[in-house]
Amino acid sequence: MIITLKKETPQEEIDRLIDQFEEKGLRVNIIQGINFNIFGLVGDTTQLDERIIQANEWVDTVQRIQVPYKLANRVFHPEDTIVDVAGIPVGGKEKIAMIAGPCAVEGDEIICEIAKEVKEAGASMLRGGAYKPRTSPYAFQGLGSEGIKYLNHARKETGLPVVSELMSVDKVDEFAEHVDLIQIGARNMQNFDLLKAVGHINKPILLKRGMSATIEEWIMCAEYILSNGNPNVILCERGIRTFENYTRNTLDLAVIPIIKEKTHLPIIIDPSHATGNWKLVKAMSLAAIAAGADGLIVEVHCHPEQAYSDGMQSLKPEKYKELVQEARLVARAVGRDL
Amino acid sequence: MIITLKKETPQEEIDRLIDQFEEKGLRVNIIQGINFNIFGLVGDTTQLDERIIQANEWVDTVQRIQVPYKLANRVFHPEDTIVDVAGIPVGGKEKIAMIAGPCAVEGDEIICEIAKEVKEAGASMLRGGAYKPRTSPYAFQGLGSEGIKYLNHARKETGLPVVSELMSVDKVDEFAEHVDLIQIGARNMQNFDLLKAVGHINKPILLKRGMSATIEEWIMCAEYILSNGNPNVILCERGIRTFENYTRNTLDLAVIPIIKEKTHLPIIIDPSHATGNWKLVKAMSLAAIAAGADGLIVEVHCHPEQAYSDGMQSLKPEKYKELVQEARLVARAVGRDL
Amino acid sequence: MIITLKKETPQEEIDRLIDQFEEKGLRVNIIQGINFNIFGLVGDTTQLDERIIQANEWVDTVQRIQVPYKLANRVFHPEDTIVDVAGIPVGGKEKIAMIAGPCAVEGDEIICEIAKEVKEAGASMLRGGAYKPRTSPYAFQGLGSEGIKYLNHARKETGLPVVSELMSVDKVDEFAEHVDLIQIGARNMQNFDLLKAVGHINKPILLKRGMSATIEEWIMCAEYILSNGNPNVILCERGIRTFENYTRNTLDLAVIPIIKEKTHLPIIIDPSHATGNWKLVKAMSLAAIAAGADGLIVEVHCHPEQAYSDGMQSLKPEKYKELVQEARLVARAVGRDL
Amino acid sequence: MIITLKKETPQEEIDRLIDQFEEKGLRVNIIQGINFNIFGLVGDTTQLDERIIQANEWVDTVQRIQVPYKLANRVFHPEDTIVDVAGIPVGGKEKIAMIAGPCAVEGDEIICEIAKEVKEAGASMLRGGAYKPRTSPYAFQGLGSEGIKYLNHARKETGLPVVSELMSVDKVDEFAEHVDLIQIGARNMQNFDLLKAVGHINKPILLKRGMSATIEEWIMCAEYILSNGNPNVILCERGIRTFENYTRNTLDLAVIPIIKEKTHLPIIIDPSHATGNWKLVKAMSLAAIAAGADGLIVEVHCHPEQAYSDGMQSLKPEKYKELVQEARLVARAVGRDL
Repeated sequence: MIITLKKETPQEEIDRLIDQFEEKGLRVNIIQGINFNIFGLVGDTTQLDERIIQANEWVDTVQRIQVPYKLANRVFHPEDTIVDVAGIPVGGKEKIAMIAGPCAVEGDEIICEIAKEVKEAGASMLRGGAYKPRTSPYAFQGLGSEGIKYLNHARKETGLPVVSELMSVDKVDEFAEHVDLIQIGARNMQNFDLLKAVGHINKPILLKRGMSATIEEWIMCAEYILSNGNPNVILCERGIRTFENYTRNTLDLAVIPIIKEKTHLPIIIDPSHATGNWKLVKAMSLAAIAAGADGLIVEVHCHPEQAYSDGMQSLKPEKYKELVQEARLVARAVGRDL
Repeated sequence: MIITLKKETPQEEIDRLIDQFEEKGLRVNIIQGINFNIFGLVGDTTQLDERIIQANEWVDTVQRIQVPYKLANRVFHPEDTIVDVAGIPVGGKEKIAMIAGPCAVEGDEIICEIAKEVKEAGASMLRGGAYKPRTSPYAFQGLGSEGIKYLNHARKETGLPVVSELMSVDKVDEFAEHVDLIQIGARNMQNFDLLKAVGHINKPILLKRGMSATIEEWIMCAEYILSNGNPNVILCERGIRTFENYTRNTLDLAVIPIIKEKTHLPIIIDPSHATGNWKLVKAMSLAAIAAGADGLIVEVHCHPEQAYSDGMQSLKPEKYKELVQEARLVARAVGRDL
Repeated sequence: MIITLKKETPQEEIDRLIDQFEEKGLRVNIIQGINFNIFGLVGDTTQLDERIIQANEWVDTVQRIQVPYKLANRVFHPEDTIVDVAGIPVGGKEKIAMIAGPCAVEGDEIICEIAKEVKEAGASMLRGGAYKPRTSPYAFQGLGSEGIKYLNHARKETGLPVVSELMSVDKVDEFAEHVDLIQIGARNMQNFDLLKAVGHINKPILLKRGMSATIEEWIMCAEYILSNGNPNVILCERGIRTFENYTRNTLDLAVIPIIKEKTHLPIIIDPSHATGNWKLVKAMSLAAIAAGADGLIVEVHCHPEQAYSDGMQSLKPEKYKELVQEARLVARAVGRDL
Repeated sequence: MIITLKKETPQEEIDRLIDQFEEKGLRVNIIQGINFNIFGLVGDTTQLDERIIQANEWVDTVQRIQVPYKLANRVFHPEDTIVDVAGIPVGGKEKIAMIAGPCAVEGDEIICEIAKEVKEAGASMLRGGAYKPRTSPYAFQGLGSEGIKYLNHARKETGLPVVSELMSVDKVDEFAEHVDLIQIGARNMQNFDLLKAVGHINKPILLKRGMSATIEEWIMCAEYILSNGNPNVILCERGIRTFENYTRNTLDLAVIPIIKEKTHLPIIIDPSHATGNWKLVKAMSLAAIAAGADGLIVEVHCHPEQAYSDGMQSLKPEKYKELVQEARLVARAVGRDL
């Protein structure tokens, strides 16, 4: 950590600060500039909070050299983490995970029908929301436990592992028992109590990026889960909020090489929520694979115009099948498969 | 609601859509354009989900004319809501609420000391976090119930009502009993389970705007609380996330006249989190009052450089006193007082 | 265009507005809602300015149904425009244009050396800035006419067409004579005098998206060039400014399918400026091609660490060669070549 | 400047870098960390380009300690700059400049009428665009020289100095002769040729912030003007582009105390373009004054619904008069006047 002190900082304050840092086992190097004095702290600085240091009236700037995460850090864990989702490996050089299904589970029959269709089209896992975070209190809020039951039925029928969103701590046991890949949604990315709770179970977690979360904040949320004991974290980019509103969000594909450089965790892409428009989903899916994504999570519905939510961004099964076929060609062009 | 259909939409699809809307009690008016057919729906359209309608392949655009909130809507509730916080009225033409205190409750003695200092400086309520949402799992997470106890001690010593952040549903009872104004933080603005839970109690709620929430999304979160039965909602702007990073966030003061036009709820401003820099707090506080804010929530700490969190944005008590005095002059210039 | 009028709008105002629109040859359809009256205007509404209509105190909302551009509009020009750059066709199903070279032309020898290297690596055009828009007045501002001369020398040596940025109207003649593809930079996207000037020549124009321009604003800038007589416009996405600052900008690849749906113009991608980091350039290049881009413009420098500007985002020639080889595989996977 | 080098950097590279910096007259201090080597450069680092240093493969991070501007820097010019606009002083503790008028000059009679109205309401300068930067090539582009003539007529009639936007270098002489305060618009903030051109004249310049410009980029544009010889720069905040689209832009009032801390230049606020909505203009005007603004530039039109552009954000003269009266009370509350 580099701290710049104002030129006029009194010597006793400088001495006090040095003592304070040395007490924490850090070594302090000092550079005398023309307009500034600079402290270089050597040692484990993850214990320091830069905003507290910055509160000191003599401090001008504070810059962290080391990133604030350890367990997610590629530096300390050079090999790729491969997460096992009910027998399907995700990450590394493994096959690209193809997750597909409706935004919401709407009924037993329809989810089983969609499950068969997406399996037939080439999907390797089934998604479907039972508890839905809806902007309006007057909108359909999901079928709840009933929905989870239907998902399990669809898994039995097709063999596809199931992915569903967990919204509250009191449902953790239900999800640990019945869901193969537990999604933490973008709106709950920084619901720290929920992160701690899923850190205490052993099921794979799909951690979506918050819609205005920086990459570092997102990795720190993975760190919450990892540091509470659960190593099975998959990251998921689903678009960030920007000024552009032709698309629902702006898909930030540069996170793929960045996450792979900074962490050892798998990264998958959600082109459906990112664009909010089914017409853009195929192009963004192919782009994600070309950039090195470990998986795709895509909304598919047999009757998008009758969907209870987000029909606008859902593909019909035949369009999804086309996507899978083209995605396979791109995957092979970059040395992967699906 | 206005729906534009593509020119080539088949007549049977047009008929089907008309039937579908009329079944919901809506009247459908049709305009034949050169390149489009336009449906104007008359009636209560809050029951419709525009994204589902947009999923129809023949639909080109959907535009909502009526806003999607009812209970928060000024149109249906023209008079200002005045929220009673332990005897202190907030909103309307009442005195501007001056909430002050540390980011986190750090101990019994220190919170009581700060409480006395801010009361003496002119504050009317005391803030202090007992449960802290921290970006890093390795950072101080708050004193929890112990912190709530200390806050209650400080209230007993000074008579100031206390404001604190609630992060999870399982603490709702504790807060309903011991906290006078329950804060829902920016990161939990769309934690819908938490919103429903505080909708079932009767204590005043301080609902912070999410860091990338649109004004409409924010009002819809108030609607969640209102529609679950709790009418005591105060909105709080605390800065939005933008490209500018000289400040921690960008304070969006235009929300003050907008919230007052669109809703009947009180609106207060948090200049400390918005700017992240104590040097900017006074100027933004005066600006907020000039724009019509119903209150200010400001971080104050006796020893910012020793604070456990966010010392950088905390004022010392003497600076806060200065702020209160200048704020009073501005308040009077715009026909209010504090 | 759909205009909603407040319920209480006086009849004479309604009549006045109808007259006003009918005078412009528009047909006005009226819907009487419970809380609103709605006008649907049928005819050529590109002549109307929605913000002026909105200034009327009785008007609540104005929504444009037709997009405000004509010449760039795919609807009126269904076939792809293919722009000829000194004999190289760009757009449609043509080979993907591979433009490469340094940020700035730094000297005769070095630009010729880089030109040979990028040609050898597989580039089809040479880029290089002679006039540089620099954030600081104290930074290297480019070699000017001297730089253009060196670019011409490099073209003579290698046969590669040259691409360079035009910053002011008084240099249009120089560029029309000596540059094969004239770039309008992001900072000048809405320099309307410059757009008009390049609309009066016949050379191909590479129009970069402004760093906070919406897609519609960007297309409207192409419309400026087209409507002044020059049909040879290629659009270039180079990243938009968002809250995320790990990358220099956020590359918005969804524009590729959007531009292809809305317009008939070619679209190329600049992954170097978008990311600001050479390590991310290959992944974003492959993604762009998978998404359907008609070309790539990539910074390449033989000695990035000695570059006069933007060395951090420049690839070395051997890295660029690798990029071209992998890009070719992805291009073929999506039915193109390069 | 602080440079961190990777641990594995070879000694000869370290030596080469030290030589390179010392040749430029800088002193290099070295800190050996566990995972990094750190260089602290002491001396005048404004000559260095951090992105070039970062291009070195051994460099991990580069942090500038000193800001990159000199002439605009408050540190080297502690007293406030007061700009004289045709006899009216702007900045320091002077009266708050009240600039008002239409978006565009639409005719001789109407501009003179508005000029009289705004003077009567309390304005001290008249604004009006003769050359208009319009998003659409089909929209009214301004009256040009004719408009400048009418502005001069209005000045003669009322004595108000005139403010108008300059869009191109070839009109600099016209503006230097006929306009009292020359505006550089947001879209041209980084039109560096234009900045250099107005740096060569002596007239006061009103430099608007680009819609996605950081504060530092904006100050660097002022530095372009200052370093070319013109010290008469007034900065103007007009809203930045964010995800929120209820308002046209988001007004960033925190720039007022920031600009006053970092620079010695006057800062004025444009609440009309910032909000795009006349209903929000008064509240934002009062807020700006409370925060310490040196002036306001407000759109006023006698018949907003007949304006050629931006009628929606224009106040009628009687509303402006009300604004001036309330603004005066707030100004006095913060120790200024208008």
